[in-house]
Amino acid sequence: MKVVALAGGVGGAKLADGLAQALPPEDLTVIVNTGDDFNHYGLRICPDLDTVCYTLAGLANPETGWGREGETWNALENLNRLGGPGWFRLGDRDLATHLERTRRLAAGETLSQVTAAFCAAWGVGPRVLPMTDDDVPTIVRTDEGELPFQEYFVARQCAPRVSGFHFRGAAQATPAPGVLETLAAADAIIFCPSNPWVSIDPILNIPGVWDAMKGRAVVAVSPIVGGQALKGPAAKMYAELGTEPSAVAVAKHYRGLLTGFVLDTIDAGLVSLLDMPTLVADTIMQNRGHRLRLAQEVLEFAAGRVPQ
Amino acid sequence: MKVVALAGGVGGAKLADGLAQALPPEDLTVIVNTGDDFNHYGLRICPDLDTVCYTLAGLANPETGWGREGETWNALENLNRLGGPGWFRLGDRDLATHLERTRRLAAGETLSQVTAAFCAAWGVGPRVLPMTDDDVPTIVRTDEGELPFQEYFVARQCAPRVSGFHFRGAAQATPAPGVLETLAAADAIIFCPSNPWVSIDPILNIPGVWDAMKGRAVVAVSPIVGGQALKGPAAKMYAELGTEPSAVAVAKHYRGLLTGFVLDTIDAGLVSLLDMPTLVADTIMQNRGHRLRLAQEVLEFAAGRVPQ
Repeated sequence: MKVVALAGGVGGAKLADGLAQALPPEDLTVIVNTGDDFNHYGLRICPDLDTVCYTLAGLANPETGWGREGETWNALENLNRLGGPGWFRLGDRDLATHLERTRRLAAGETLSQVTAAFCAAWGVGPRVLPMTDDDVPTIVRTDEGELPFQEYFVARQCAPRVSGFHFRGAAQATPAPGVLETLAAADAIIFCPSNPWVSIDPILNIPGVWDAMKGRAVVAVSPIVGGQALKGPAAKMYAELGTEPSAVAVAKHYRGLLTGFVLDTIDAGLVSLLDMPTLVADTIMQNRGHRLRLAQEVLEFAAGRVPQ
Repeated sequence: MKVVALAGGVGGAKLADGLAQALPPEDLTVIVNTGDDFNHYGLRICPDLDTVCYTLAGLANPETGWGREGETWNALENLNRLGGPGWFRLGDRDLATHLERTRRLAAGETLSQVTAAFCAAWGVGPRVLPMTDDDVPTIVRTDEGELPFQEYFVARQCAPRVSGFHFRGAAQATPAPGVLETLAAADAIIFCPSNPWVSIDPILNIPGVWDAMKGRAVVAVSPIVGGQALKGPAAKMYAELGTEPSAVAVAKHYRGLLTGFVLDTIDAGLVSLLDMPTLVADTIMQNRGHRLRLAQEVLEFAAGRVPQ
């Protein structure tokens, strides 16, 4: 069973890890949002890619979900002393990733090539693809003006009120090599429980991605549980954009794309509001075993959701 | 007594620290070689400036003379794992210096401004000036072709045979703000025991520097002791360029500039070969007390060496 997962940050990385535990590496491709990539101190930083890769490599910090396990902060501490901006937490081990990526990109490698080389070095089995090798920054429209995603998310801690999103350059972007091919050949496409607005939508806006999913089994796992986002600003975004945050809102968000939807047991009462096949499951992944169990349930469910 | 010191790397930094101990901070300016500055992983790295500043700030690693005390190497270890070039030892604390300098330069600050800001943050009292804010890379001509200095010095460990030096862009460079003014107003100019070819000569080749020293007391401390360089390739360079390495060779190197010369007690027998006033002193600085004592002797000697 060939599976493609679409993922953003921490929640997406967790289910991707579950899928990686459940499937032979050659059967799993993870397509990752790069809309939150940005430049900082001259370094090219790809937070979602790094979170997914660190998680799949077993290098992630289990407490935060992002960054590296056993990280040290000597560079950041000295940046603070020199008056440099400290809002983005640059760990010493993590810095190596940004430094070597920056070096390779400057030497002419694509982000796909860099990511493949890093995954090989880290022993990541599944294929990890950035959604595109082009720069398609997610711009958050807010009551304080347009903000690049990391400024909204990290520097401003999601405080500004959101009025919309813009994936700058998406219309001119090319999907990274392998993205359309693996989607078109997938037995199941899983939208991980990532933020629909700023993790999954950027991928769906890359030209060709939507069409490549036609005729496939496409299943989304709701990142909204009991009206709340487990992590991040998804629920706040729904509310600010005038929709009650709920699993139903997520399912409607992806209208026309999905052949199945997965929601948490807490939200079992919402099933009757959804006009598509559903799986009710325990979607809160508190350890690696939970990730595997959810992945197995989602895969079994998705296998039966091929459109007729 | 207004004093200007010209310095390169470790030996120069040590005497600069002695002078900083001996003088009120407002009376000392250290002009530092920037010919070994280079770009690595997209970062702007200024090894001599950093060595001088770390030393004056009390942050330097006392064992190596370069880099930071109590340094950690988590970034470098992970760079190695990713296959990045590891020949230049980037410590975690040291990285902050390069990152913030790179950020400030990209934002439009000059190297002088960055250096002043860092010295303020580190509590460095004396004024530290880069020789120029322009890029004047030292190119080493060798039997393996032209090599940028750090490639020759660190990556190739000074193995190639030297046939000459080129200070690329020196003729078009402008001295950093304050360089010519402090030289022209100095009661004493001290050439620290730094490599004449690649630490002091780059400074002397910045337009206006030589002329600004005219009529001043100019005293050099020999970096060659007993025919050997205490550190680095100075002796090897003299030999490869056809001159026997000695304190005499150093004095002749600066012919026409000096009003006094300081050589080690080991070389007391060479005094008769020098046609200028000399001070014989214990020039090997094994601790901070030695640095201060040598600085005091050199200052006293220099005070009497004003040209008539």
